[in-house]
Amino acid sequence: MKFRVKTYAIEAGRPIVVLNEEDAKDLGVYVSDRVEISFDGHNIVALIDITTSFVDEGKVGIFQEVKDLLDVREGDEVEVKATKRPESVDFIRKKIKGGILHGHEIRAIIQDIVDNNLSDMELSAFVTAGYINGYTMDEIVALTNSLVETGQQIDFGDDTVDKHCIGGVAGNRTTLLIVPIIAAAGLTIPKTSSRAITSPSGTADTMEVLANVEFGIDDLKDIVNRVNACIIWGGAVNLAPADDKIIQVEYPLAIDPQGQVLASVMAKKKSVGSDYVIIDIPVGKGTKMVDNEAANNLAKKFIELGKRLDIEVECLITDGTSPIGSGIGPALEARDCLLALENKGPTDLMNKSLDLAGALLELSGNVQKDKGRKVAEKILVSGRAREKMMEIIEAQGGNPEIKPEDIKLGKKEHTVEADCKGRIRHIDNKKISYIARAAGAPKDKTSGVYLHVNVGDFINPGDSLFTLYSRNNRKLEEAIRLANKLQPIRVGGVILDTLR
Amino acid sequence: MKFRVKTYAIEAGRPIVVLNEEDAKDLGVYVSDRVEISFDGHNIVALIDITTSFVDEGKVGIFQEVKDLLDVREGDEVEVKATKRPESVDFIRKKIKGGILHGHEIRAIIQDIVDNNLSDMELSAFVTAGYINGYTMDEIVALTNSLVETGQQIDFGDDTVDKHCIGGVAGNRTTLLIVPIIAAAGLTIPKTSSRAITSPSGTADTMEVLANVEFGIDDLKDIVNRVNACIIWGGAVNLAPADDKIIQVEYPLAIDPQGQVLASVMAKKKSVGSDYVIIDIPVGKGTKMVDNEAANNLAKKFIELGKRLDIEVECLITDGTSPIGSGIGPALEARDCLLALENKGPTDLMNKSLDLAGALLELSGNVQKDKGRKVAEKILVSGRAREKMMEIIEAQGGNPEIKPEDIKLGKKEHTVEADCKGRIRHIDNKKISYIARAAGAPKDKTSGVYLHVNVGDFINPGDSLFTLYSRNNRKLEEAIRLANKLQPIRVGGVILDTLR
Repeated sequence: MKFRVKTYAIEAGRPIVVLNEEDAKDLGVYVSDRVEISFDGHNIVALIDITTSFVDEGKVGIFQEVKDLLDVREGDEVEVKATKRPESVDFIRKKIKGGILHGHEIRAIIQDIVDNNLSDMELSAFVTAGYINGYTMDEIVALTNSLVETGQQIDFGDDTVDKHCIGGVAGNRTTLLIVPIIAAAGLTIPKTSSRAITSPSGTADTMEVLANVEFGIDDLKDIVNRVNACIIWGGAVNLAPADDKIIQVEYPLAIDPQGQVLASVMAKKKSVGSDYVIIDIPVGKGTKMVDNEAANNLAKKFIELGKRLDIEVECLITDGTSPIGSGIGPALEARDCLLALENKGPTDLMNKSLDLAGALLELSGNVQKDKGRKVAEKILVSGRAREKMMEIIEAQGGNPEIKPEDIKLGKKEHTVEADCKGRIRHIDNKKISYIARAAGAPKDKTSGVYLHVNVGDFINPGDSLFTLYSRNNRKLEEAIRLANKLQPIRVGGVILDTLR
Repeated sequence: MKFRVKTYAIEAGRPIVVLNEEDAKDLGVYVSDRVEISFDGHNIVALIDITTSFVDEGKVGIFQEVKDLLDVREGDEVEVKATKRPESVDFIRKKIKGGILHGHEIRAIIQDIVDNNLSDMELSAFVTAGYINGYTMDEIVALTNSLVETGQQIDFGDDTVDKHCIGGVAGNRTTLLIVPIIAAAGLTIPKTSSRAITSPSGTADTMEVLANVEFGIDDLKDIVNRVNACIIWGGAVNLAPADDKIIQVEYPLAIDPQGQVLASVMAKKKSVGSDYVIIDIPVGKGTKMVDNEAANNLAKKFIELGKRLDIEVECLITDGTSPIGSGIGPALEARDCLLALENKGPTDLMNKSLDLAGALLELSGNVQKDKGRKVAEKILVSGRAREKMMEIIEAQGGNPEIKPEDIKLGKKEHTVEADCKGRIRHIDNKKISYIARAAGAPKDKTSGVYLHVNVGDFINPGDSLFTLYSRNNRKLEEAIRLANKLQPIRVGGVILDTLR
C-alpha cells in the first residue's frame, strides 16, 4: 500500500512508524508488528505503532531515525507492506521457554540489538529471561563473542593487559593509579571506563576532571600507540555496542543477569585485545556481592570465561564494606589520585592500587611471583607513575602540569562533626553516595563528600567526620539534610543489625 | 527546575516527557526514570526519554497524554523534579527473582498498568517473569480480583451465566447460537467477546456483520436488561482494562502465561457477575492444548479458580483438530449461524453448540441432569432461539428481519477442487486461517473461506473442496497462491507426520 509521509522531529530510539488504525487493519498488522517501507530503492523494516487520531488514513508517521534511513521528506510517497518479526524474536522466545541458545541464535539477537531491530518489550523479555533462566558457559562465551564481533575491535599485540572492578564501592578510583603504574612498567593498558549512572562518579567522570575522555576508536589507537595507555569513556568508542543497549534495559529493572555481566565485562576486554586481566570483586554488605561464596562463584566463572576466550584472568576478592580513598565525587577523587601519584594520597587507595597493580604485573609474567607489589611501589614512589599519568593526560588533551591544588572544588562547603566519642565502626557506601549525589555529583564535578576519617579511627566529639562540597547553597542544604537523616558514619557500638 | 513546554501532536501510549541530556544530568535522572511535572496545581508522574538534539536545554518535550493530563500548551512553564519509580516496579522485581506476590502487591501492579504508569520494559518483564516463574493459585485469585476491581463491574442477579472458548479453532462461532438458546431459556447471559488479532475473525467481528458491537457499560446494562443477553465487543466496555494492556505485551512475544490466561478469562466473567460458566477447551494438534493432559490440567485450574471466586465452572474438552462450521471469515460465519438458527446450518456447528448450551443449562440447575441437550435442541428447533437472536440483534441496532441470504459475500470468488479420490483426513485450522486472512478477513468482513467438505467425507477428483471469497482480485489471487502452497485439506493417506 502507498502512504504519504508525515514527519515528527524527534527520535523514537529505533525505527518506528505510526499508522492509522484502519490502515493497520488493511495491512493485517497490529501494534508491535513490523512493516517494510520502501522509498527510492531503499527498504527498511520498522516496528509499528497505531493511532486513531494523529495520523490520518493514507499517511504514515515517521520519526527521525526512519526519516534519516530512508532519506524521505514530509509528503513523499512510500510503499508499506507487512513483514515478519526478525528470527531473533523466536530465539528470545526459546530462552523464555527455558531453551539453551545456540551460538548463531545468540549472534542473531545481539546483531538485532545493535541494529535497533528489537522493541523495548522484546529486549526486556530477553534480559528478564536471561536473568531467570540463566546462561550456560557455552551461551556466555557465545554472548561475549557476539558482543565483540558486532562492534569495533583492536589489537595492540602481546603484553596488553587490563583491569576491571565490578563496582559498588564509593571512591575506589584505583584505575587512575593502576593504569600509569602498569604503563610505566612497559605494558599496554587501553582502559575504557564507564560514566556514573546511579553513583556519584564513574572512572570516566573522574578522569574528565583531568583530561578529555570522549574519543572514537581511531583516537584511542593513536593515544595508546603513543603512551601505552589511556583512560577514556567506553561509550563513545563503539566497542561491544549491544552491551550499552542491554544495560539501558537492565537499569530500570535493576537486574543484572550474571551471564550478561560476565559477557559485558569480558567483551570490552576482548575488543581491545587484552591478554591478561585482573578483576576486582569487592565483597561485603552493601556491595554487589553479599558474601565470599557469591564472590568466589563469580570469580570462577570469570576465570573459566577467560580461558574460553584465551584471556588469562585473575580475580581479587577485596573488602568492599566501606569507601576507598577520601574523596567521593569527580574532582575530589581526581585530587586523591594526583596526591597518591605524589605518594601523598589516602593510604587505603594507594595500598589497594599497589596490590592490584602488583598482581597484574605478576599475572602478565613480566614480574616474578611475590615481587609485583614491590615493583609497583617502586614505580609509584619513584615518580615514574606520575610522569606516565601526565603523559596520558597530555595525550588526552589535558594539562600535564596539573597539580592536586589546581583542582577546583565546590565553593559552598559544610563540615559534619562527631557528636560522640568512640571508634569509627562503619562508613556506608550507599549513604555516602546518595549524599554526594545530592550535593550535585556527577553532573557538577566539583561537588561531593570528603571523608576525614577511616574505619578504625578513634574520634572525639567535635572532630571533623566529613566535608560536603557543592556549587550552590540549595544543593548543599539538600546534602546536609540527607546527611543528617542517613547518618552515613557509625561511631562505636557493636550492634550490626536490628531485627523485629 | 523550571522548563518551557514543547508539544508533540502524537500519543506516546503513556505519560512520557523528553528532556535534553544536560538537563537530565542536572536533575540526576536517566532514561526510564520518572519525573514529577507540576503546572497550575496539577501534578503528574511521567517516564523520561532523553535526547541530545531535538529538545533544547530548558525545554521539556510533551506528548498528547501529558498535554491533556496537565492541560498545558506550547511555551507554558512547568516545574519538573526527579521522583521515584512506583512501588509496583519493586514487586515486578520480586516476581523476577522468584518471589510469591502478596495480594496488595499484585493489586499495585495491576493498578499501575491501568493507570499507564509502567513502561513497556517493565510490563514486558512482568509478563515474562509470570510466564517463566508461574503463579500460585493464591496469586491467580489476587490477579483476577485485581483485574476486576480496577475496572467496571455489573451484577445482573441470580441465574447469570456465561461461556468462553480458549480458541484455536477456525469457524467455531458457537456463541451466536448458545447465547440466544440460553437467553430464550430465561437465563441472563451478558457475553463480551474479542476481535481477531491473528485469526480471520473474532466473535465480535462476526456479530458485527449483524449488529453493532461497540457499546459502553451503560448500553450493555440496558441491552441485557431488555433482552437478557448481548453479544458485544469487550474492548469498549472497560471490564478488566488491565487485561487488554497485558495482552498487548503478550502478543509480540507470543507467550501467554497460564496464570494470566486464567485470570483474564475469569475476570471478564466476574466483572459481569456470572454465577455459572462453561469453558470450551479445544484439544489436538494445532490448537492451544497439545494433548488431553494439558487440557485437563488447565480445566482443573479453571474449576479451582472458579470456586475461589464463587463461580461454578464446568470445562468441556472438545475436539479442536479441524474447523467447526463451514464458513471462516466474519460474513461467512454469520451466515452459518443464521442458517443454524433456522435449523439448516452446518451439522458440526449445531451439534457442538447444542452440547455446550445443554451443559450450561444443566450447570445452572435450571434443567435436570442429562436433559440439557434435549431442552437446548427444542429451543433451537422451535425457532425460539432465532426469535431471541433477532431481539438481540435489534437491541444492538441491527436489522431484526435479516435472513441468511441477505448477508453479502466478497464479489470475487474461486473454488478449489479435489485432484484425487479418497477420504478427507484432516483440515488444518491454521492453514485455513492464513488463507482467509490473505483473502482480506477480518478487516474485509465479506472475505474468507467456505468449506464444502468435512473430515471423513469421501470425495472424487473435481469435487469442490472450498471456495475463497474476497473484495478484490489482488487479495483473491494472494489467497489462491497461499491455498496452493499450504494445501490445507488432506485427502487420503495415513501418514501423520514425517520426521528426519
